[in-house]
Amino acid sequence: MSGEDAPAQQQNAVDQKQETKPAEEPKNEPAKTESPPAAATAEAAATPAATTEKVPEEETFTYRALVLTGYGGYDKVKLQVKKGKPALKAGEVLVRVKACGLNFADLMARQGLYDRLPSPPVTPGMECAGVVEAVGEEVTDRKVGDKVMVLNRFGLWQEVAAVPASHTFLIPEGMSFEEAAALPVNYITAYMMLFDFGNLRPNQSVLIHAAAGGVGIAATQLCKTVKDVTVFGTASASKHETISEGGVTHPIDYRTKDYVEEVRKISPKGLDVILDPLGGSDTHKAYNLLKPMGKLITYGAANMLAGQKKNLLAVAKNWYHQFSIHTLSLIQGNKSVCGFHLGYLDGEMELITQAMNTIMDLYKEGKIKPRIDSTWHLEQVGDAMRKMQERNNIGKVVLTTEPMPEEEKKEEPKKEDKKDDKKKDDKKKDDKKKDDGKKEEKKDDKKKEEPKKEEKKEEEKKEEVKKEEK
Amino acid sequence: MSGEDAPAQQQNAVDQKQETKPAEEPKNEPAKTESPPAAATAEAAATPAATTEKVPEEETFTYRALVLTGYGGYDKVKLQVKKGKPALKAGEVLVRVKACGLNFADLMARQGLYDRLPSPPVTPGMECAGVVEAVGEEVTDRKVGDKVMVLNRFGLWQEVAAVPASHTFLIPEGMSFEEAAALPVNYITAYMMLFDFGNLRPNQSVLIHAAAGGVGIAATQLCKTVKDVTVFGTASASKHETISEGGVTHPIDYRTKDYVEEVRKISPKGLDVILDPLGGSDTHKAYNLLKPMGKLITYGAANMLAGQKKNLLAVAKNWYHQFSIHTLSLIQGNKSVCGFHLGYLDGEMELITQAMNTIMDLYKEGKIKPRIDSTWHLEQVGDAMRKMQERNNIGKVVLTTEPMPEEEKKEEPKKEDKKDDKKKDDKKKDDKKKDDGKKEEKKDDKKKEEPKKEEKKEEEKKEEVKKEEK
Repeated sequence: MSGEDAPAQQQNAVDQKQETKPAEEPKNEPAKTESPPAAATAEAAATPAATTEKVPEEETFTYRALVLTGYGGYDKVKLQVKKGKPALKAGEVLVRVKACGLNFADLMARQGLYDRLPSPPVTPGMECAGVVEAVGEEVTDRKVGDKVMVLNRFGLWQEVAAVPASHTFLIPEGMSFEEAAALPVNYITAYMMLFDFGNLRPNQSVLIHAAAGGVGIAATQLCKTVKDVTVFGTASASKHETISEGGVTHPIDYRTKDYVEEVRKISPKGLDVILDPLGGSDTHKAYNLLKPMGKLITYGAANMLAGQKKNLLAVAKNWYHQFSIHTLSLIQGNKSVCGFHLGYLDGEMELITQAMNTIMDLYKEGKIKPRIDSTWHLEQVGDAMRKMQERNNIGKVVLTTEPMPEEEKKEEPKKEDKKDDKKKDDKKKDDKKKDDGKKEEKKDDKKKEEPKKEEKKEEEKKEEVKKEEK
Repeated sequence: MSGEDAPAQQQNAVDQKQETKPAEEPKNEPAKTESPPAAATAEAAATPAATTEKVPEEETFTYRALVLTGYGGYDKVKLQVKKGKPALKAGEVLVRVKACGLNFADLMARQGLYDRLPSPPVTPGMECAGVVEAVGEEVTDRKVGDKVMVLNRFGLWQEVAAVPASHTFLIPEGMSFEEAAALPVNYITAYMMLFDFGNLRPNQSVLIHAAAGGVGIAATQLCKTVKDVTVFGTASASKHETISEGGVTHPIDYRTKDYVEEVRKISPKGLDVILDPLGGSDTHKAYNLLKPMGKLITYGAANMLAGQKKNLLAVAKNWYHQFSIHTLSLIQGNKSVCGFHLGYLDGEMELITQAMNTIMDLYKEGKIKPRIDSTWHLEQVGDAMRKMQERNNIGKVVLTTEPMPEEEKKEEPKKEDKKDDKKKDDKKKDDKKKDDGKKEEKKDDKKKEEPKKEEKKEEEKKEEVKKEEK
């Protein structure tokens, strides 16, 4: 196994020698990230590490981690095996990760467009769900065995993660790890935008772009918790049935229609709240669509993402069209423009915890429920990212840390070289899979909703190989 | 009496011949605004018009009105006598005005800096209080004799005003006409800024500039209706005691201290809500003082007002420094920038009425109470404006339509020619008058809190001369 000979007791990233410069604040980068070819790494990962028995656990401890090795296309995120158990600082817990959420910021980060992710090599991932495996000093409100969801600036796309206990939230009864991994970023984002900045009240109207995306679905569900809110949602036509069922009052196909016109037809005076993940010229449109006392909340620049690598033209265009507003215009229009990004809010755990508590209450009351689009193995992260970036998802794209069955793995290494022709395959799959209505049970070994292309559901019951844990 | 021979039956502004072009949407500009010298007009106004008895009321009906005759200094607002009873359209009521509120927008308007006031000649005035004297067709919820406060785009600084019934609000039991005239603009502005855009919640912190001004005092009182809100308020030192008593937790003398530093000393992370009436570079400072999830609500450009006439340098400076914000900065800061101005919200009477209902409830519960700085006769409007513009007021500056006692009137005409040396006099008066703590009774004949300079309170009990009404 690669890197097996490295000294590894109680190491963590800051005091490790690495081939590349250490990333800023990595919580648990391991000793010697040697970046073996992805195929070899994936092999290694599947090999149970529990064969050597007399070596102290800290040295033999290995875990798989996704690592962004440089900015660029989907193939820049590689699966590696890390060695050495992450040391816990006071206030931290070690989480055995079961599932991770993908977010738009991860896609931006891969292209070098998200400054909250340290420079590569670094493990991305802002949210995950798992089980507390160890607790550090001064941790009083978490114990070994607690099922938790985690919110962190980065570093959660791996099998174990050391994180501040204050960044964890207990998973309520009945919520699967996938749901739990799908929840924090999307629901906190939607909640704070709608109810803190947006101050959403009964009888108001909301425009939700990408209404079939993770934030879009969360926002729609949250809108429905307020009496008589009208939801306008943009999505391609094939997704309209699903988002209508989810609560969108007026679905709009942005590919064939001018959404501004469509909104004006129904709501001539404009809208009370607009959530804008697009940026660029769409922010201008949104601003003009606001009613007096309306709130525009911009939370991304999805328009900047064109293709899998950084597209300078798209970036420049987005910058050129970037919305800039004078106060006099705001005053004369009685309008509000807000910016939100959870990734820049990591110092505000108190605010976030407040929001999370309310969200958990809503979950327990059955008023919200994360919708999983698809679940992918760590080895499939490229495909998972592609699905999201090409907007073929309805709901959340989730990674599972469960090992990939041998047969599925064989074609894996080549996948990363495939180019855009894969797109069509993804789309076909989309139409086949709409299995989200079914409640996912907590059985982790039953979740491959989206297995690799050619190989169909075989070997699904293979048990997760657990590394030795304390 | 000037203009007495003009035909005046059932006229209103739109079908009158005027010497100057008709103003946009004037509700009740009278026939023939002949602009006699102010002194003559004031004389005329005091003469009871009820001497000719057989002429129809519509022709003999006269009333005094303040008219902005052109952009410029305090002397541009002149008292004139209008003739002809304003005709009521469906949905309108005729209000016999008892008291009017002064607002910063009126000062801006006089200098030509407020585009919601039609071109001169025009009667300014966005709020007043009085008694319903007639109701038009289709008015079901107001009757003759109702005491109301009125909110309108302009045209309320006169003895009678025809306004949409939907722009009137019943005055609650126990509220004086002065209080009622002081309430609408300041409290609706403060309420909507704090609770709609600001979404103020317990334990938050607020910065209120000009905390001794009309909006400042209203905002302070409204902040105190929320649990554990910390209020930072700027005002000159002489006003600190008063604003502290009113609820400002940390008064800051902006003339001698850097308010940004003062706030940071107490609240290093910044503030949750900032109300900014200043504009220019102060908006930048406010933005930087916001906490994550903080809201900056800008509602004016007081910095533009320097001197009694339009100061091109001040205007240019304000424009040059005008705050302009990119969405990327908002996103990375998780901040909100809002603009508010009630004058641009006149199409939204439903929103305004909702706010007003809550404000009335708070008044009845004793949680808010307008603070009157001083009350002035219509003849004294120049001094009233000056007091406000020079920031010598604590609370609201109010006009009363009660006729001015003869003795006080003698020196009136000359007053308008006086220049800035009057400033000192005003200041001296300030120190003498802090009579607002006393509850004002509803007796309209007892209100001259701020009589003209040299003449002290004499002839105060003179009864208001009522024109013949129906």
